[in-house]
Amino acid sequence: MLVGDALQSLAFQLLAAHPLAGDPTRQLEMLRLLAQAAGSRGMAGGQAIDLAAVGQPLSLAELEFMHIRKTGALIRAAVLLGAACGEQLAEADATRLDHYAKIVGLLFQVVDDILDSESDTATLGKTAGKDAAHNKPTYVSLLGLSQARTKAAELHGTAREALAALGDKSGRLADLTDFIVSRSF
Amino acid sequence: MLVGDALQSLAFQLLAAHPLAGDPTRQLEMLRLLAQAAGSRGMAGGQAIDLAAVGQPLSLAELEFMHIRKTGALIRAAVLLGAACGEQLAEADATRLDHYAKIVGLLFQVVDDILDSESDTATLGKTAGKDAAHNKPTYVSLLGLSQARTKAAELHGTAREALAALGDKSGRLADLTDFIVSRSF
Repeated sequence: MLVGDALQSLAFQLLAAHPLAGDPTRQLEMLRLLAQAAGSRGMAGGQAIDLAAVGQPLSLAELEFMHIRKTGALIRAAVLLGAACGEQLAEADATRLDHYAKIVGLLFQVVDDILDSESDTATLGKTAGKDAAHNKPTYVSLLGLSQARTKAAELHGTAREALAALGDKSGRLADLTDFIVSRSF
Repeated sequence: MLVGDALQSLAFQLLAAHPLAGDPTRQLEMLRLLAQAAGSRGMAGGQAIDLAAVGQPLSLAELEFMHIRKTGALIRAAVLLGAACGEQLAEADATRLDHYAKIVGLLFQVVDDILDSESDTATLGKTAGKDAAHNKPTYVSLLGLSQARTKAAELHGTAREALAALGDKSGRLADLTDFIVSRSF
């Protein structure tokens, strides 16, 4: 946990130290984005909801509310911080990219739940079925495996559509998106 | 622990969001200062040393090395961040203030160890004698109570001298310094 604390500080330190095209205002925006994603309305808040939800029945909407914060917020920040390092995007493209960033975070989680339910422990690198065994709600426990797969396919399609509208420069994100769906660990 | 994580992010968020006299470069410096104080070379690193030291014999130099990081770094940052909000100090005054900030952090810890060794639990608000009982080295266990008191008095004197050279504007810090020594909880 202390290593995690130290690495979190290091992220802020590097972001505050690295001169990004000599634009301190943009650096401050990036620092705000990262801080919000990590804090009470992002990762830390989502983790708190996750802890409070053990043994509780959650609706699908509540499960998504939790995941959007717990893992989604930092995945979204990773996409937006990457974009902030490049040339400023047109507003419509920035909106598309943000939509993609939100969708791909959920996609990651749905796939994670599917892998957790169907993999054996050796392949997954963590104890398979652990979430269900701890009575933690998952997309698979709420939707069933078949519908969870359908949901993953839909999110994958939506994410790729959002990227397609961004043109050629989104090729790497498209590859990453496909990898999130095809991974087996 | 999650509340602590969230509050740490909030500190970075506020520091990145609050327009300090429209000077984004100074804000970035302040963010770097806070991140360094909280991270592996500050609080998180000091806490790791503290955990590793339980049951180990530490020399006085090693004890100070630990405290300068674990509690001292953030106390120092608090002083320097306050100074960074005001008019820029002359270099000699900035050096004096930084010296004060380092000394006052150690002073706080020496007094804390004295209080821990001599207070009863009700007054202290935490379990008295807890550090010694956990076989954690303290200024009192290394120096004895009498010499620990002498050290506190010396650090108090050094801290007040550094402030005196800063003139009238250091009155509040002088009051805080006296409080650190006179507190009984």
